[in-house]
Amino acid sequence: MMTLNKDETLPVAAGLHELFFPRSIAHIGASPKPAPGRFAFLEYIQKMGYEGALYPVNPSYREMLGLVCFPDLASIPGPVDMAILALPAAMSVAILRQAPRGKVKFVVIHTSGFSEIDKGYLEDELIELGKAKGFRMIGPNCMGVFNRRAKICFWNDHAELADRPGSVGWISQSGGLALTLMSRAIDLGIGIEKAVSLGNQIDVSIAETMEYFAEDEAIRVIAAYVEDVKDGRRFLETVRRITPQKPVLVWKGGVTAVGRDAARTHTGSMAGNAEIFAAALRQAGAVRIDNHDQMLIALKVLERPDRLPGRNLLLVCPGGGMVVNVSDAFSAQPNLSLPRLSPECQARLQEMVPQENVDLKNPVDPGAVGMTKLGKIIETAGREPDIDSVLTIGNADFLQMLPNDQVRELVIQEMVHTVSSSAKAIEKPFYFYIMPVHDDPVSALYRRLLRQRLEDQGVPCLGGPYYEIARVFSRLAGMQRRADPQ
Amino acid sequence: MMTLNKDETLPVAAGLHELFFPRSIAHIGASPKPAPGRFAFLEYIQKMGYEGALYPVNPSYREMLGLVCFPDLASIPGPVDMAILALPAAMSVAILRQAPRGKVKFVVIHTSGFSEIDKGYLEDELIELGKAKGFRMIGPNCMGVFNRRAKICFWNDHAELADRPGSVGWISQSGGLALTLMSRAIDLGIGIEKAVSLGNQIDVSIAETMEYFAEDEAIRVIAAYVEDVKDGRRFLETVRRITPQKPVLVWKGGVTAVGRDAARTHTGSMAGNAEIFAAALRQAGAVRIDNHDQMLIALKVLERPDRLPGRNLLLVCPGGGMVVNVSDAFSAQPNLSLPRLSPECQARLQEMVPQENVDLKNPVDPGAVGMTKLGKIIETAGREPDIDSVLTIGNADFLQMLPNDQVRELVIQEMVHTVSSSAKAIEKPFYFYIMPVHDDPVSALYRRLLRQRLEDQGVPCLGGPYYEIARVFSRLAGMQRRADPQ
Repeated sequence: MMTLNKDETLPVAAGLHELFFPRSIAHIGASPKPAPGRFAFLEYIQKMGYEGALYPVNPSYREMLGLVCFPDLASIPGPVDMAILALPAAMSVAILRQAPRGKVKFVVIHTSGFSEIDKGYLEDELIELGKAKGFRMIGPNCMGVFNRRAKICFWNDHAELADRPGSVGWISQSGGLALTLMSRAIDLGIGIEKAVSLGNQIDVSIAETMEYFAEDEAIRVIAAYVEDVKDGRRFLETVRRITPQKPVLVWKGGVTAVGRDAARTHTGSMAGNAEIFAAALRQAGAVRIDNHDQMLIALKVLERPDRLPGRNLLLVCPGGGMVVNVSDAFSAQPNLSLPRLSPECQARLQEMVPQENVDLKNPVDPGAVGMTKLGKIIETAGREPDIDSVLTIGNADFLQMLPNDQVRELVIQEMVHTVSSSAKAIEKPFYFYIMPVHDDPVSALYRRLLRQRLEDQGVPCLGGPYYEIARVFSRLAGMQRRADPQ
Repeated sequence: MMTLNKDETLPVAAGLHELFFPRSIAHIGASPKPAPGRFAFLEYIQKMGYEGALYPVNPSYREMLGLVCFPDLASIPGPVDMAILALPAAMSVAILRQAPRGKVKFVVIHTSGFSEIDKGYLEDELIELGKAKGFRMIGPNCMGVFNRRAKICFWNDHAELADRPGSVGWISQSGGLALTLMSRAIDLGIGIEKAVSLGNQIDVSIAETMEYFAEDEAIRVIAAYVEDVKDGRRFLETVRRITPQKPVLVWKGGVTAVGRDAARTHTGSMAGNAEIFAAALRQAGAVRIDNHDQMLIALKVLERPDRLPGRNLLLVCPGGGMVVNVSDAFSAQPNLSLPRLSPECQARLQEMVPQENVDLKNPVDPGAVGMTKLGKIIETAGREPDIDSVLTIGNADFLQMLPNDQVRELVIQEMVHTVSSSAKAIEKPFYFYIMPVHDDPVSALYRRLLRQRLEDQGVPCLGGPYYEIARVFSRLAGMQRRADPQ
């Protein structure tokens, strides 16, 4: 397969600005009633509140979604910053052959059926067409571009992210994972600033997108799902340049032979040796991510990049068995320790807790205490000079056992007040973990309610498995922000 | 702390029969309105449908829960097979001092505040009292005993397990984890046959309970959460003797120094070197478990101990990115491989799938196909001689996107029919993984619905993180059923 040489650039002004801030978008192959499984891109973008020009292109219609429909690209009046192509591979190529030179700045080739199924020759032609006609491409085999500020997106639920402040730049080679991560971010109250699904990366690459995000002041954290970096050296150099300024999270797919085989079928990837790549990434200062759960935990923590978990963690955790398990999970990780609280501190705590079913060393199990005392305990332990961050563990399932909504509301208010006041008083990075116990609708409802109420008061809430929180804390605590940007 | 010598036994007839099948139960310290955090044991047991004699004991009441209330143990007419003591430690000891000799067979000492807070001398007295008065004990610092058939239990939601066939014997040193695991088992449709929370184990130990469960024909799988085995040699010998007949799952808490410290505070445990213990357990044929999620996955799989996942797994998984991730997760585990499907098989599959967005090697990503074809694909690949078990991955979140309940019902019916028919046709161990995507009430509802419908048709459904499924499958595939029971 032909790829661009290192010094060769496609003939468009530098940068990806028009890709993320298009003034006009055409959807070639748009339909007022998309078949099941097809994407209604223009509808999603309308729902986001996009204010630029939208052009459905389909010779069978004269109008759709309240918009004038055009028979082809040439008929559209004025330039098209982004053209979304969602048609079979060969037809997509044929349409671009007909495109007037200079008409389109970026083509998002949603369609699959290219190098990942050994039709690399079609990709070669796309590259030639791009050069000849002056457009650049993302994909093929990708979802597209999301930008909260430009109000562009590629899925139905993205409108829910439009008004949520976020500082994450999310780059996913996989379209499915791009969508899933964003949907789960919506559930967890994580803001996404910009996102792009890159697919086979015949033109715009992960490295180039990272470079763009590096310059973007709205983005403070870069997260990437990577199966294959087309130019390993450029990618690693980019990561190395960015990490002194912004954290870079890299989730690598295809780390086993079977996974690499699947990645080749998925996005035409030719991934190399996983261990060498992982070591190089670590040296470049990136944080390794292994799965969705870790990525979501890391993104939530990194919403406050100035308040990352440190190496000396205090855990406050009710329930003796759970204390043992979280002790094991967190203390087994490199870069993390649970410093034993001083005898003086333990003595002060002793006065606030019952005699039985408590643990005061760290983790602290406060036993059966009321909220006021719990707040005092968290503060007293959290203020110890040996401690540099605090994770308080609780769950929302107990709310089900309360007699009615009025009582529940009072309990939530008291809990939110206690936890958020302690968090403020301690003046250290502080997280609340809402441990998922039951997988039933009512529990999910109360988890969401408690999370929203705590986050409204500035307490970041984590979910997912506690052992994945331990891994993420460990990696963030060990993150090497290199001192010499170059 | 005094413990029993190896050859010394407490003066009660061998076996724990009356502990699991008590004909009469007294709750000393029962109250018609327990304070928050206190347990209403008799109420839970009534709710279970227990048919033996129930005796609340409390000098302040003459009646509660429709039962005659007695001022003390001595006033109860007839013998007491199980006495539940839920009073402060010193008071518990005082009450047992007053107990008539021979009156009580088993005492469940729910109360904490013994050796775990350096009051081992109270435990010494309990042991002396047991010998003198002829009772045996579980605890202190424990929850009690659950037995589906005898309809005894220790928590409010246990009644939901009463009519659910199950073959699990669950032994937990931690009371909190005993409860949590059982609650989650209820969510996931896992049946529990018997359970016991053992706490500080001053008398009845994990090993003795295992021996009892080993002889119990109703129990086919033994699962244990262990912080400390009081007699390591007896415990390991017991495990070694059982594993040729029944799988034994051991989740060990306190595997790190901090975790061991917490375990000492939790259940007075003096755990030894974790690696040596883990190696000895493996040699004895036990399956290692690291957390709740793994335990629940293993218990679900082991509901059919005759149909365990083998070493050669077929994964059917929609979505290219997810295929890469599950490939990595499963193929990185020892004892597991995903054999590449033969060219002939791939050619047959090729005729059933679209050209794009598919993968036919294993994992199989069937792309956008209808249900009928999906069934054919699963069967065709699953029947390959290289494959010995099948995991099909799906999710329930898409059900939200369907227009109404009628359509949803039709889709579920078709899906359940397809999956269960394929599972039957393949005649190999078959599991369906309902991947949790969203943590919201509606998704949780549809996960439960889909699970129930599939399980009604005999398809075991797994939940939790996919990477933990990979670990459990690996350990079950590697489980050494020793050939020579002795």
